[in-house]
Amino acid sequence: MPQQAFEKIGVIGAGSMGSNMAMLFAENGLHVSVFDVKAQNIDNLAPVFRDGLEPELHSRIVSYKEYPPFLDSLGGANVPKLFVLSIPHGSAADKVLEDIDNYLCTGDVILDGGNEWYENAQRRQKALQPRGISYISMGVSGGYQSARRGPSISPSGDRDALQKVLPLLERFAAKDPKTGQPCVANLGPAGCGHYVKMVHNGIEQGILGIVNEAWEIMYKCLHIDLDEISEIFGKWGEEGELRRNFLINIGAEICGRHHPDGPPSHVVNEVQDKVVQDADDSEGTGIWSVMEAARRHVSAPTIASAHFFRIASADRAQRLMVVHNLGESIGAARKQHVEDAARGEFLEDLRLAVYCATLASFAQGLNLIARASEDEGWGVDLASCIRIWREGCIIRSEYIADLLQPLLEKEGKVTNVLTLKRVGEEVARTIPALRRVVQRTLEWNAHIPTLSASLEYYKYCAGKHLPSQFMEAELDYFGAHSYDKKSEGAGEVKKGKHHVEWKRA
Amino acid sequence: MPQQAFEKIGVIGAGSMGSNMAMLFAENGLHVSVFDVKAQNIDNLAPVFRDGLEPELHSRIVSYKEYPPFLDSLGGANVPKLFVLSIPHGSAADKVLEDIDNYLCTGDVILDGGNEWYENAQRRQKALQPRGISYISMGVSGGYQSARRGPSISPSGDRDALQKVLPLLERFAAKDPKTGQPCVANLGPAGCGHYVKMVHNGIEQGILGIVNEAWEIMYKCLHIDLDEISEIFGKWGEEGELRRNFLINIGAEICGRHHPDGPPSHVVNEVQDKVVQDADDSEGTGIWSVMEAARRHVSAPTIASAHFFRIASADRAQRLMVVHNLGESIGAARKQHVEDAARGEFLEDLRLAVYCATLASFAQGLNLIARASEDEGWGVDLASCIRIWREGCIIRSEYIADLLQPLLEKEGKVTNVLTLKRVGEEVARTIPALRRVVQRTLEWNAHIPTLSASLEYYKYCAGKHLPSQFMEAELDYFGAHSYDKKSEGAGEVKKGKHHVEWKRA
Repeated sequence: MPQQAFEKIGVIGAGSMGSNMAMLFAENGLHVSVFDVKAQNIDNLAPVFRDGLEPELHSRIVSYKEYPPFLDSLGGANVPKLFVLSIPHGSAADKVLEDIDNYLCTGDVILDGGNEWYENAQRRQKALQPRGISYISMGVSGGYQSARRGPSISPSGDRDALQKVLPLLERFAAKDPKTGQPCVANLGPAGCGHYVKMVHNGIEQGILGIVNEAWEIMYKCLHIDLDEISEIFGKWGEEGELRRNFLINIGAEICGRHHPDGPPSHVVNEVQDKVVQDADDSEGTGIWSVMEAARRHVSAPTIASAHFFRIASADRAQRLMVVHNLGESIGAARKQHVEDAARGEFLEDLRLAVYCATLASFAQGLNLIARASEDEGWGVDLASCIRIWREGCIIRSEYIADLLQPLLEKEGKVTNVLTLKRVGEEVARTIPALRRVVQRTLEWNAHIPTLSASLEYYKYCAGKHLPSQFMEAELDYFGAHSYDKKSEGAGEVKKGKHHVEWKRA
Repeated sequence: MPQQAFEKIGVIGAGSMGSNMAMLFAENGLHVSVFDVKAQNIDNLAPVFRDGLEPELHSRIVSYKEYPPFLDSLGGANVPKLFVLSIPHGSAADKVLEDIDNYLCTGDVILDGGNEWYENAQRRQKALQPRGISYISMGVSGGYQSARRGPSISPSGDRDALQKVLPLLERFAAKDPKTGQPCVANLGPAGCGHYVKMVHNGIEQGILGIVNEAWEIMYKCLHIDLDEISEIFGKWGEEGELRRNFLINIGAEICGRHHPDGPPSHVVNEVQDKVVQDADDSEGTGIWSVMEAARRHVSAPTIASAHFFRIASADRAQRLMVVHNLGESIGAARKQHVEDAARGEFLEDLRLAVYCATLASFAQGLNLIARASEDEGWGVDLASCIRIWREGCIIRSEYIADLLQPLLEKEGKVTNVLTLKRVGEEVARTIPALRRVVQRTLEWNAHIPTLSASLEYYKYCAGKHLPSQFMEAELDYFGAHSYDKKSEGAGEVKKGKHHVEWKRA
């Protein structure tokens, strides 16, 4: 017997994501109840709904400042209810579940749409399951605009509960413009949906670093004005390797944006150069991605170098002390004169370098998902991840999705996409441009932590003979770590059999 | 009343570290009982002690394959005993403590000398303290040669217990050859001793990456033969910025080492180019250092890039598949002809580049200790860390210790050593060499993940205007992250006040 779909949904958390999801659920035929522990957030909703929702749908959303009427509106303690949580990870989400605990009953489905640490998600699923309450790890990507128009969704958890809500999520999710397919799929058991979303944000962090470096090269070194950079990003995002690359597309809009009043001035020029995103524990996903890469033995330098750059940018006051000590020239990108003809050629190199490095960020993120999935027994299908990321999310990159999705669908289990022939061809085709850009912009003293780390990544991933033979000898010298001999072939990934007594104890 | 010092010590774990420490304790006047759960490890000890210890001291060490006689030899269940553990972290160490639990009594002191995760150390200390048993987090560095001749020791835990064993540890520890001072100090409460050792290994990982890259540049690009590289490392390690830099010193020995029999051949040439050290969970410290940097919001790209390089080197079979796809030239360092005169100049640049990058590894590691100490309320004195690292450990670097120790002693609390004027001068003096080396060796396609990451680190730490203004605008576009305005000055490290509706939801 097919289960009755839910007609109501309770949205807990009325921030920018929650309020926009509420409107989208209302448009998708649900009666929506919205709750927030902060009364102010509820008070802020009236103008948001007034401006953002067709008048005839207003009656479909009711907001609450207290739990009892909110929960009663969903049917109370004895009727199966559908919730979506859009609140900060960790203790805040735990507190909500504690607060509503008395109202939960068998058949309830809780979609946790926050950026949650996957182990918290697993813990909650385990605690609620014996009571017949289905907790779903639901990654929601794309920022608040997508939350309103259709996000990319990576849910995981109880299969029956997911079957029940998937038709709703398929209506709700972004659609791949090529095929119309919804960007949502059941990824596996509880936890892995949040894990995939975490890695999405890790890949995002890498791409943000890459695009950011390309921006400085154009603006500070080549001295291209912002309106022209807007055009360049615009063209890059239209066709070829960067087509429909979200962070390139919005880069075009950002660079073209002027203040509406007063004398002409670009908004981006007023923004201070510090990203505080990962300088505390409120966000999490960028930090966790780096931690997980280290913990799962995955090489992820594109993701990590972008992370360390943005952390270092956060404390501007301390940075100015360092500038004072080291002098301004060490950290200042230099203006260059490049002839017009050469400029066009360089910009084409830069475009391909951005693509090549972005592919590295994807390779590292997918490698991390594959390893975690193997460690945890999740069985996450990488092709499904790519399909989910085709629209509505921040790492949307149509060319890369078109490259990877069919390969992953065909190959089945893949740990490292660099082992796929077609991917190798793409890297081989575009790495010369990345190498030229890194060389050139190093001379210009541009900040290129992510571009250069991506180049080095490919160089050592494709290194037939790495200098690590010397490092291995050093480790054997003082640590008796033992080594394999070259004459023994590739061997296994484990401690070697040979030790030399380089120096007696 | 001064407590009676211990006359006996029980060493648990008879691997290369444990067996060498046993001999050193015997030389320091203790009666030593050695135990190992693996009978084979005990059987292996006879020739080790025969070759490594003066005959008159042999009677001071007795080995055991069973707990009861081992524990009885220390006085049994009712006499305060001194133990040193030299076993793998985590469950192996927990198992030992469980096995000896019935024999523990008030007044016992357990020196945990393994590379333990600091939270495990804190947990054990907490569990044993109510019973009057003192658990000491004791980082032991320097590999097995130092374990025999005098290691660098970073203990922390119960102050009274540490007072009691410090005289012994001071005899036991390495001595700074300049001052005769022992390389040991009470660093603070339980856990932080292991934390400081973990960071030591993180800094070590960075330096290993740096020296490794310098080795490839000389051997593969400049085609200098190994005996000459041995001489070059030898000179570098004698005076100037790399004097008594341990990893340079042993690099000289390694490159000069030939097989004793058969035709002349260098041992290092037979070593396979894979470091499996962090490819599983057995070691830990390199992995934890990267995880902790991310978790504590510390920028540590030198440490992380060396880590990701060595992880990627581990799976040679997979690497060969990638080489097959991408072609051999992408990851192959190229041989270069450099005129003799220019060669000398380049090698001097390389020497300073190694120093400058090594200083970055120290700056990042110290920053991590400072942040963790602040978060956890440990009060770790960074000057003490430098003093402990003056001899007996893998990151021994006399010039850097001479630079940092007086500055840290004078300044007191320092979070980031780059904010110290003298350190800034050193970076400013040597970064041009690092920049030239990175530029040049990039042309040669050398593998330089750690050198280039260190250069970029300084560039953004000393960046008065970073491209992150664009990244911040991108985050504000889709995430409503909010920003500070340039006109508002440096501001605080927290979410800004301004948001632009770049695109309506």
